[in-house]
Amino acid sequence: MDDMARGDGNASFYKGRRVLITGGLGFIGSNLATHLVALGAEVLLIDCLNPHYGGNRFNVAPIRHAVHINISDVRDTSSMQYLVQDQEVIFNLAGQVSHIDSMRDPYTDLEINCRSQLSILEACRHHNPSVKVVFAGTRQIYGKPHSLPVTEDHLVRPIDVNGINKAAGEYYHLVYNNVFGIRSCSLRLTNVYGPRQLMKHNRQGFIGWFIRLAVEDREIQLFGDGSQLRDFVYVDDVVDAFLRAGASDACNGEVFNVGGTGPVSLGELATLLVEVAGTGRVRFVEWPPERKAIDIGDCYADSSKFERATGWSRAVGLREGLTRTVAYYRDHLSHYVEPPADAGTDTP
Amino acid sequence: MDDMARGDGNASFYKGRRVLITGGLGFIGSNLATHLVALGAEVLLIDCLNPHYGGNRFNVAPIRHAVHINISDVRDTSSMQYLVQDQEVIFNLAGQVSHIDSMRDPYTDLEINCRSQLSILEACRHHNPSVKVVFAGTRQIYGKPHSLPVTEDHLVRPIDVNGINKAAGEYYHLVYNNVFGIRSCSLRLTNVYGPRQLMKHNRQGFIGWFIRLAVEDREIQLFGDGSQLRDFVYVDDVVDAFLRAGASDACNGEVFNVGGTGPVSLGELATLLVEVAGTGRVRFVEWPPERKAIDIGDCYADSSKFERATGWSRAVGLREGLTRTVAYYRDHLSHYVEPPADAGTDTP
Repeated sequence: MDDMARGDGNASFYKGRRVLITGGLGFIGSNLATHLVALGAEVLLIDCLNPHYGGNRFNVAPIRHAVHINISDVRDTSSMQYLVQDQEVIFNLAGQVSHIDSMRDPYTDLEINCRSQLSILEACRHHNPSVKVVFAGTRQIYGKPHSLPVTEDHLVRPIDVNGINKAAGEYYHLVYNNVFGIRSCSLRLTNVYGPRQLMKHNRQGFIGWFIRLAVEDREIQLFGDGSQLRDFVYVDDVVDAFLRAGASDACNGEVFNVGGTGPVSLGELATLLVEVAGTGRVRFVEWPPERKAIDIGDCYADSSKFERATGWSRAVGLREGLTRTVAYYRDHLSHYVEPPADAGTDTP
Repeated sequence: MDDMARGDGNASFYKGRRVLITGGLGFIGSNLATHLVALGAEVLLIDCLNPHYGGNRFNVAPIRHAVHINISDVRDTSSMQYLVQDQEVIFNLAGQVSHIDSMRDPYTDLEINCRSQLSILEACRHHNPSVKVVFAGTRQIYGKPHSLPVTEDHLVRPIDVNGINKAAGEYYHLVYNNVFGIRSCSLRLTNVYGPRQLMKHNRQGFIGWFIRLAVEDREIQLFGDGSQLRDFVYVDDVVDAFLRAGASDACNGEVFNVGGTGPVSLGELATLLVEVAGTGRVRFVEWPPERKAIDIGDCYADSSKFERATGWSRAVGLREGLTRTVAYYRDHLSHYVEPPADAGTDTP
């Protein structure tokens, strides 16, 4: 909430506005809800609370009397047709985000990331065509980059089923914008971190898992020399990006990278994390062959298109963001850890 | 069959080989089957004979005792798991191809073009991982081109639900090639024409419909000045492309444009068609506003990547192809026309 002042430009826009967040009890959704409540919006959160996914009632404990919570699954077409009605802005964040799960069970990934997006948009087309929709896209759709930093002109070449279905989900939003006038845009997020992120297992991205390992004073294993470059963006900056996109008709029909400051190697990240936490340690290990085979090498994004369109900029640097994040989990770790449901680590 | 000699390079490859064609009673599938029978392959055709789609038993009348025909729907996961077994090459052509239908009923388009492709590939992954798969992609996934001729490096920017789901279907093939070793490639077809094409309604592309209008001595209406450029490829050349792709491991994991010779305007096409047929006439009409809104302007493809990879070249020019096509429908029109099931013309 420290950066709420940056929301000022959006304060008048969101005050009293009816806002729906799918995946609203998840990582980004709950942080977004927290900011929207502070801005005076009427917030409806949808989440299915699938125990393997990021939805967590504790995420909205401080605002639970200030929001409406509706437990439902975006795969449930009937509920969606009702719930989108009368909403003014939809932040469409519900998704299956595990690479590994998508390759084990591609149908579930398709149902959630592809078919459900279509049914949300169909619900808007038939029951609420004046709504504005902001979709949570992902840099994963670029696959292994052929040029860096990755811009929005980079080819979409997903390397897994999850990336394909997320790409299709994004394309639907653009087509519904262009053909049916459902004002929509997509933010292609890179590596987002911060409070309220899932860390009960390691299949939804590595950064939450690394933070847990550091906080629990465990060993963080890096493959190879840890030199792979990524960009990291603090969740409050991502929340600010969503708020700006939701309030800006200049974004309609467009896709935008929303990433972090200049590239950082995984080794630098882990070292900084351990330093900030004062606990945990880093160890470099051999690449497991099956992981090397799906490694995408370096990947970091150019967010300048979004900066130009909305005036967005990042306010929280990596050290500051990690410091806040570690502090949050030191206070609340018990609400975020459970015995891992399954083995396997997701690709950095 | 005139160009069978060109298949010589593939003759030894396909002789005695077990080949499955999904959408095998359709336009391209049945032409491909006809060639494969001549090459000595053991051919299994799958088709659901949906009355709105291109499957037509008459298409395979001359070879009906030389192939196995299995009526089933690619949406039927159980059947697919059985039918892919022991096949050596799968030509995966089954699809919903109407732009208009996909916007009216996006779920059916998703089930056929997206989910079914996944289940065919899952069937191969679990029951026949050594099979080779050639997917029928489409230039529609490029949307409105930003550069011409369109190469495979052009961004995928579909303008309709059909294009999105076809893109996802193609991506699945590439991911299953790269991750699970299911050798696959995709041919992005442009405007294919020739004998055995659906022409009972006008929702599956304009060229079959134009040919019907000419053969029936009716009026062909062109929007605006008819100057939009396209490329046209005769079905026997496309069959040759599929045969080469199916026999070439150099194609695995790759996408290829398969298009026609240099750009031709719709006005030139229609004029040549009327001249060749000796019947029909061309009239230029005002753009209907709702059609102008979804017009993609000029679109023609560069097929040189596929030519380099396989030695493919087109053998049938536009005049010759149209002459053969008109002759075919003069003989067999009654097998291809029915009262149109619905109104609306698909986008050229």
